[in-house]
Amino acid sequence: MNGEQFREYGHQVVDWIADYLDHTRDYPVLSQQKPGELVDRLPLVAPEKGESMDLILDDFRKLIVPGITHWNHPRFFAYFSISASAPGILAEMLCAALNVNGMLWKSSPAATELEQVTLSWLRQWIGLPDEFFGIIYDTASISTMHAIAAAREMADPDIRRRGGTGRLVLYTSEHAHSSVEKGALALGIGQENVRKIGVDAEFRMNPAALQSAVENDKAAGKKPFCVVATVGTTSTSSVDPVPAIADIAEATGMWLHVDGAYGGSAMVVPEYRHYFEAVNRAHSVVVNPHKWLFTPIDVSVLYTREPEILKRAFSLVPEYLKTAEDPRALNYMDYGVQLGRRFRSLKLWFVFRYFGHEGVAHLIRNHVQWAGKLANMIRADPDYEVVAPTPFSLICFRHRASDQHNRDLLEKLNKSGKAFLSHTVLNGRYVLRLAIGNIATTWEDLEETWQLIQVLGKTT
Amino acid sequence: MNGEQFREYGHQVVDWIADYLDHTRDYPVLSQQKPGELVDRLPLVAPEKGESMDLILDDFRKLIVPGITHWNHPRFFAYFSISASAPGILAEMLCAALNVNGMLWKSSPAATELEQVTLSWLRQWIGLPDEFFGIIYDTASISTMHAIAAAREMADPDIRRRGGTGRLVLYTSEHAHSSVEKGALALGIGQENVRKIGVDAEFRMNPAALQSAVENDKAAGKKPFCVVATVGTTSTSSVDPVPAIADIAEATGMWLHVDGAYGGSAMVVPEYRHYFEAVNRAHSVVVNPHKWLFTPIDVSVLYTREPEILKRAFSLVPEYLKTAEDPRALNYMDYGVQLGRRFRSLKLWFVFRYFGHEGVAHLIRNHVQWAGKLANMIRADPDYEVVAPTPFSLICFRHRASDQHNRDLLEKLNKSGKAFLSHTVLNGRYVLRLAIGNIATTWEDLEETWQLIQVLGKTT
Repeated sequence: MNGEQFREYGHQVVDWIADYLDHTRDYPVLSQQKPGELVDRLPLVAPEKGESMDLILDDFRKLIVPGITHWNHPRFFAYFSISASAPGILAEMLCAALNVNGMLWKSSPAATELEQVTLSWLRQWIGLPDEFFGIIYDTASISTMHAIAAAREMADPDIRRRGGTGRLVLYTSEHAHSSVEKGALALGIGQENVRKIGVDAEFRMNPAALQSAVENDKAAGKKPFCVVATVGTTSTSSVDPVPAIADIAEATGMWLHVDGAYGGSAMVVPEYRHYFEAVNRAHSVVVNPHKWLFTPIDVSVLYTREPEILKRAFSLVPEYLKTAEDPRALNYMDYGVQLGRRFRSLKLWFVFRYFGHEGVAHLIRNHVQWAGKLANMIRADPDYEVVAPTPFSLICFRHRASDQHNRDLLEKLNKSGKAFLSHTVLNGRYVLRLAIGNIATTWEDLEETWQLIQVLGKTT
Repeated sequence: MNGEQFREYGHQVVDWIADYLDHTRDYPVLSQQKPGELVDRLPLVAPEKGESMDLILDDFRKLIVPGITHWNHPRFFAYFSISASAPGILAEMLCAALNVNGMLWKSSPAATELEQVTLSWLRQWIGLPDEFFGIIYDTASISTMHAIAAAREMADPDIRRRGGTGRLVLYTSEHAHSSVEKGALALGIGQENVRKIGVDAEFRMNPAALQSAVENDKAAGKKPFCVVATVGTTSTSSVDPVPAIADIAEATGMWLHVDGAYGGSAMVVPEYRHYFEAVNRAHSVVVNPHKWLFTPIDVSVLYTREPEILKRAFSLVPEYLKTAEDPRALNYMDYGVQLGRRFRSLKLWFVFRYFGHEGVAHLIRNHVQWAGKLANMIRADPDYEVVAPTPFSLICFRHRASDQHNRDLLEKLNKSGKAFLSHTVLNGRYVLRLAIGNIATTWEDLEETWQLIQVLGKTT
C-alpha cells in the first residue's frame, strides 16, 4: 500500500473514529455477543491471497465492532474507567507510523529523551521529589513486578547470581491488587511468603497488624524485604496509611512500593495531594496514565529513588546491543525485562500539552466531585447503602436487599447496554462498583445511570 | 476535542503519515542528534494551560522527528529490521480509538476471539499442530519469561506456593538472546543456574555439550528443567539443531522452548519450513509478528502445548475480576503477569488479510533471496568475508582489515544517515550485521548500500 492509498484509507478511518468519538453513546457499553459468536463468523483459515482494505474495514464495522465492550464509552463505569482522548489517539497514529523501538538511546534518541522529559513533568504534577527516576512499562502489573524485583535486589544482591528467594517475605494488604501477588509468584517469592495484612473498617491496611507480621516473620528466621501500600485500592479506592507503613519499612529495612496505578493520577490536583502523604519516602511508586490521565492503553509509569538497584537487577548487555554512547546516554532497556519498547512517551507529551496541568486537574476534580455528589444521592435512597468511603471517583454501594438481588440488578443493568458497572465483595457482601474516569462522561450520564439503577432495583 | 476537531487533525496526521511512508528515504536513517539535545530544547515544566494541537503537531515535526532513528526506513538494516505496514498502522489507529482492555472475554469479546482466530491462522502458516494454544504478549522477552515460568511450574508445581528455585538449571546456547538469561534472572533462577552451551562452527548449539552439561548437573544434584533452542539467533540467525535438543529434553523431562522471535516468521514460506524441524516437539515457541510479519511494534506470540501449566503458574482471580462467563469463556489474563492487554490481534487481522499468505510469503522470500545474493556479492569482493551462513535475511560480514577498521567503517556509514547497520562479535572479531526485513526495502537499496560500504571501506 503506497502513501496515496494509505491517505485514502487513513481518511476513512479518521472519519470513522471522529464519528465514533461523537456517537460512542449510541453503542451498547457492554458487548451483547455470546462466547464463540465471533469465532463462528470468521474463517478457520487465513486468506491465501490478499483482500481489499475496503472489505477489511467493512468487516471491522460489521463483525468486530459488535464484539467490542466500549471502554471509551462515557457510561463505562466498570473496573476503572479509562479514556483514549483525541490527542492521545493522534499520538498513537504517529507512534505506529514511526514504529520506533526505544530500547537504546541510539535506537531513537527522541523516544528516550521524551520519556525523560514527560516523566519529569508528571513527577512534578504529582508532587514527587526530583530524585525519583521515571521509566515507562506497559502495565502496572509489570511495573509492580519490577519494583518487587528491585526490592529483592536490595535485600539480597546475591540472588541475581544464586537464584532462590525462600526466606524473603512480602507484605501487602488483603485489598491490594492481585498483580502484587502475581508479581511475587512470577519472581519466585512464593505464595506462602506473601502476607496479606488485614484492613480497618475503611479497607486500609492496619499498620499494627503489619508490624506484628513483620516481627513474627523475623522471629521465624524469615527476611521481610518489601511492603506494597496502595493509594486507591481496586475494590474501594481506599488509601493505606503510608506514613505509618513507611515508618515500619524504614525500621525494618524493607523496600516500600506504593501502588498508585489509579489513585496516583489524582495527585495532579493539589487539594488531593494529601492522600500522597509520605509517598516521597517510598522506594518506588507506580502511576498509570492509561487509567486516569486520558492516555490510550498501554502506559504505566514507575518512579524509583533507587534506579541503580533496579538496573543492577536487570542490566545485561550483549555485544550486539553495545553502543558508543553507552557511558553518556540512558538506555532504558537496562532497567527491565522488556527489550522492545514502543514510543509511549509521545502520547503523554500530546495529552499533557493539549490539556495542560489545569485541564487535567479540572477533569479529575470533576470526577471526584461527581462521585461525592452521586454517593450522597445514593445514601439518600433508603433502599441503598454506600459501603465504603469515596476519596476519589469510585463509589461502592449496594441495594439493601440480598446479594442475589444485587447480582441480578447488575446483570440486568449491564445487559441493557446503557451502562456498565462491575462488582466486588466487601465484608462478605456483594457490592456494586461505579468508577468515574472517562473524559466524555457528564454529570447527566451519572444521574441517568443512577435513575436506571433505581428503576431496575425495584423491578428486579 | 470533539469529533469534528479530531477529524481535522486526524486528516492532517494521516497526510503526514502518507508523506512519511512515501518519503521515508529522505530522512537520515540514524538520528543525527547528540545525547541531551532534545531534553535541552524542551521546557523543564509542563504547560499550566492547554496548548493548541497546531502547535503540538508543529513541534512534533520540528523537535521530535529529528530525534527519530527511522526503524520504518527501507535502509534500516540494524538489529532486526521491522515494518509498520500501512494496514498495520490503520489497525493501530482503530485500536487506539476503541481503547479496549482485553483482560477478560467479557471486557471485550472481540479482542479475545480475534486473538484466538488470528493466532490459529498464524499457527497454520508456520506449520505448528493444532494442539498449540496461542497468546499475545508485548515482547519476546516477556513471552520467553512466561515460557520459563511454565517450565518451572512443570518441574516443580510447589514453587508457586513455596518460592525458591535453587536447584533448577536452564540451558541455552551462548548465542541465545539476552532475554533468555534476563527472564531466568527475573524468575529467581539465578545466573549461575543458566548454562550457556557452546556452539559449532556455524554458531549452532552443540547437542553433545548440552547432554554432558545436563549429566554433570544431575550428578551434582541439580535439576535440569528447561532448554531454550533458537531458530534464528540474534547475532547470526543460526538455527540450533532442534531435533537433537528435543531428544535430550524428552529424555531428561525438560521443557523445550524454541525462540523463533525472528526466524519463526520465515516458516510462513513452505520451502523454509525445514528449519522448523522438530519444533512441534517443543513445549512452547515464540514468534514476533512485529519483527518480520509487517506488523507495528509491539506484538509477540507465544504458542504452547501446555496452556494448563502456563495457567497454573499465573492464574489468580480476585473477586472483582470474576465473571458469569468464566466457565465457558477464555480469559487471557489467566495466562500471564499482565492484566492490561491492548487489542493487538486487530493489527494481525488487518495485516494477514491485506497481504494474504501469498503476499507475506512473497515478501519474506524476497528478503531471504536478496540476502543470499548480497552475501555472494560480498564474498566476491576480496577485501571482505562473510563470516556466518545466511539461512534467513541476515548477513554477517567484515572487512578483512582490523576490527578498528570495521568499527570505523560502521561508524562512518551510520553517521552518513544513508543506511543503518549494527554489529556483533564472532570468534573474537568485530563483525557487521545487515538485516533485511523492512517492507519497503528494494534490491536497489541493498546494492547501493553495499556500494557505499565498499567506498567507505576503502577510504576509512
